Amino acid sequence: MKFNCDMGESFGSWVKGNDAAVMPFVDMANIACGMHASDPMTMARTVMLACRYGVSIGAHPGYPDLLGFGRREFALEGEELEACVLYQIGALDGICRAQGRRVEYVKPHGALYNKMMRDEATLDSMIAAVRRYGVDLPLVVLGAGESANAALRERAAVQGVELWFEAFADRAYGADGRLVPRIKPGAVHTDAERVIQQVREIVEQGQVSTLEGGTIPLQADTLCLHGDNEQLLAAVGRIRAALS
Amino acid sequence: MKFNCDMGESFGSWVKGNDAAVMPFVDMANIACGMHASDPMTMARTVMLACRYGVSIGAHPGYPDLLGFGRREFALEGEELEACVLYQIGALDGICRAQGRRVEYVKPHGALYNKMMRDEATLDSMIAAVRRYGVDLPLVVLGAGESANAALRERAAVQGVELWFEAFADRAYGADGRLVPRIKPGAVHTDAERVIQQVREIVEQGQVSTLEGGTIPLQADTLCLHGDNEQLLAAVGRIRAALS
Amino acid sequence: MKFNCDMGESFGSWVKGNDAAVMPFVDMANIACGMHASDPMTMARTVMLACRYGVSIGAHPGYPDLLGFGRREFALEGEELEACVLYQIGALDGICRAQGRRVEYVKPHGALYNKMMRDEATLDSMIAAVRRYGVDLPLVVLGAGESANAALRERAAVQGVELWFEAFADRAYGADGRLVPRIKPGAVHTDAERVIQQVREIVEQGQVSTLEGGTIPLQADTLCLHGDNEQLLAAVGRIRAALS
Amino acid sequence: MKFNCDMGESFGSWVKGNDAAVMPFVDMANIACGMHASDPMTMARTVMLACRYGVSIGAHPGYPDLLGFGRREFALEGEELEACVLYQIGALDGICRAQGRRVEYVKPHGALYNKMMRDEATLDSMIAAVRRYGVDLPLVVLGAGESANAALRERAAVQGVELWFEAFADRAYGADGRLVPRIKPGAVHTDAERVIQQVREIVEQGQVSTLEGGTIPLQADTLCLHGDNEQLLAAVGRIRAALS
Repeated sequence: MKFNCDMGESFGSWVKGNDAAVMPFVDMANIACGMHASDPMTMARTVMLACRYGVSIGAHPGYPDLLGFGRREFALEGEELEACVLYQIGALDGICRAQGRRVEYVKPHGALYNKMMRDEATLDSMIAAVRRYGVDLPLVVLGAGESANAALRERAAVQGVELWFEAFADRAYGADGRLVPRIKPGAVHTDAERVIQQVREIVEQGQVSTLEGGTIPLQADTLCLHGDNEQLLAAVGRIRAALS
Repeated sequence: MKFNCDMGESFGSWVKGNDAAVMPFVDMANIACGMHASDPMTMARTVMLACRYGVSIGAHPGYPDLLGFGRREFALEGEELEACVLYQIGALDGICRAQGRRVEYVKPHGALYNKMMRDEATLDSMIAAVRRYGVDLPLVVLGAGESANAALRERAAVQGVELWFEAFADRAYGADGRLVPRIKPGAVHTDAERVIQQVREIVEQGQVSTLEGGTIPLQADTLCLHGDNEQLLAAVGRIRAALS
Repeated sequence: MKFNCDMGESFGSWVKGNDAAVMPFVDMANIACGMHASDPMTMARTVMLACRYGVSIGAHPGYPDLLGFGRREFALEGEELEACVLYQIGALDGICRAQGRRVEYVKPHGALYNKMMRDEATLDSMIAAVRRYGVDLPLVVLGAGESANAALRERAAVQGVELWFEAFADRAYGADGRLVPRIKPGAVHTDAERVIQQVREIVEQGQVSTLEGGTIPLQADTLCLHGDNEQLLAAVGRIRAALS
Repeated sequence: MKFNCDMGESFGSWVKGNDAAVMPFVDMANIACGMHASDPMTMARTVMLACRYGVSIGAHPGYPDLLGFGRREFALEGEELEACVLYQIGALDGICRAQGRRVEYVKPHGALYNKMMRDEATLDSMIAAVRRYGVDLPLVVLGAGESANAALRERAAVQGVELWFEAFADRAYGADGRLVPRIKPGAVHTDAERVIQQVREIVEQGQVSTLEGGTIPLQADTLCLHGDNEQLLAAVGRIRAALS
């Protein structure tokens, strides 16, 4: 089970997250590509950090909305969305090449990620962008139960794109299998024990408790941690220990 | 002798240049990369046009200054400049990959180009960025006489980077071998005969007449045309004919 | 009957519209405020042009989306939308003050205008922003039949804000009284006779023919012309003559 | 002696400074206007905070360079600079009006401030912008000895603009009377005792010790504190007590 974490979310002189502290504990760094966060220098520094700790590098493209941090709905579709995603993957890949690395996977950010999971046209655009980039990049999507995952896997496989399913270690799930929106109470777990419990459910039982109180099946290849969740950060070591 | 032309300089709904009309007449398209002009969709359309006419694609990185169209001095140096250039090359390369193409050379834009020609640290940053991108991309610089070209060629060769020297078909040269700034009278040739004369001087005699009235030596591998120069555009066919 | 026209829609070196040619023919200039188009220098030049021809100056605030020219849906609501609109009115007012003028009315742009007409919360935010600016600025909204206009007028009057209802001279209306979206065929009238006919219907009969073939009632205080509609522009003189 | 502090320097989801903690201790809030930092909602919140504590509101215009936080040299001059400053003053004034306030003074930010102090054309543009805004706004400039201040005061008075001279509580001065650039060691005082000593020198003796070891005369109307200087922040109460 690999841990992935959003990284490189600073912008110019504004700092977000604590990449240097988090990087040693994760396996995959989802690096912002300059449209919802980050900038070339921030990207270069984050890639350098990933190199130092042998962390896998993923492109984390988002809607072109710095002010909204890519968390607002944005009317971007079809070939325009594909071009926007290709631009971002390529930009990060350019930064990676200079350090002897390459982008190894793609995970959409924020509102784009959410839209991809509920709108098939957006999912298809993401699959198309990844396929057209042409370097066998897996696409990270939100995991669910086995059959739902299989349906998505099939849809992408037709285009020759591999999917990696992720679960969230510190975000509450609703009965519909979606993440509870951040603005709702209880949407983000800040208690380390709660996080460890959720991780255990997912890894050991292939399910997760929902905010409503039930459980839903959940198969995942990777677990997402949030670097801006300080309580969680302190617990990363314990989470890893709990898993092994 | 290859003709290169700046392309893809529209931005969103704002149109600049007439790429569809110019593309059939050029050999190399210098495509803006979204920092001083262009956007992912404009880049995708411009690459498509380059594919249609078999035109070579070059990255045309500029300072991150849309409002100033990359023509203003901008305090960007060293590793920050390198990251900014790598970002732009990569972004365009991403758009190219989706259409089965690759960036084939790099030509800096506007104020960055001018600074590269008068500031060695900026030239070295450009050479380093191109080298670190790692795909044997030639860098286009302003041509001069044989010995000046040779000195620059040597400086880049040490880093393993090939230089292509360019001359301008429609811009006036000063006695110092630099382009006369656009704001000065006579800086841009709008008369086709004047352009053809300048092209002939460069191609056939390895020299060019200056605004001051003398001539200076000028060795070039490629000739730059400006797509926003309508009189010139109409004359491209005649220029080509005059050359053959 | 006053003619209003969107102006100041250039951005940096990118030109849009032909303000100098249109200004002499209109009564009200809706000037973009730098978020979907324009920039401080463009605004200053447009205000100067409005001064020269004695044209009334209105703020034309839009969503903060240069790339989409403010024509894309944008998730901006409540106090955030109000702040964004107040910012834009104030910015243009600052440019106006330097030339001895003031913003005299407010007309939202593009997707913000459309959302205001179908979403009451957005309309209320616009009314609140205009009221809170505190200088008795009328708000321009889409006119309809008498009773629909009266309901809107009442809603704004409660907040102490005056409404001006506008009709479009060169845009087709649907049976629902809304503008036919630009992407549909027939959405924009490019034939001057067709425009004159529509203006006459509105001014003389208080109604307009719809794309579907019927007529709907339409009471308006001002008529909108589009400066990027060249055929229309050429006809402005004839339209004015036809009206008098 | 009034304390002024840069405020409202967050941008979207990126937080900078600790305005809520600092506001109670200052007399004048220099609020960023959206070009080098801030955004409409951040500005509205900062104005609200200034209202709560009865703090005077100043416009803090900067170069249009979010990525560089307005600290990079930027080629902006003459009427273009004036328009850019008028835009920013007006934008903040619009936000203020909605809360029953007005912009009460203008203090340029970062590289614009520095350029104003060493380039007369830039100073004149700032004076012109403030004068043309037309509401008797004082302009804050860097204080020096009595005669230097008098010369500047006269230059602005000719245009009908009042100057307020400021001294820096936590920045080291060079023998030339200018602030030592931030990148040099010792440029920023982080020790509260050092700050209190500097403040006492300025307020009680009209002079300040330089980094080189001497003293220079320094007359000031207001003292600048930096909100991102945490050690200083903790000492604001003691500084105030030391002064009274």
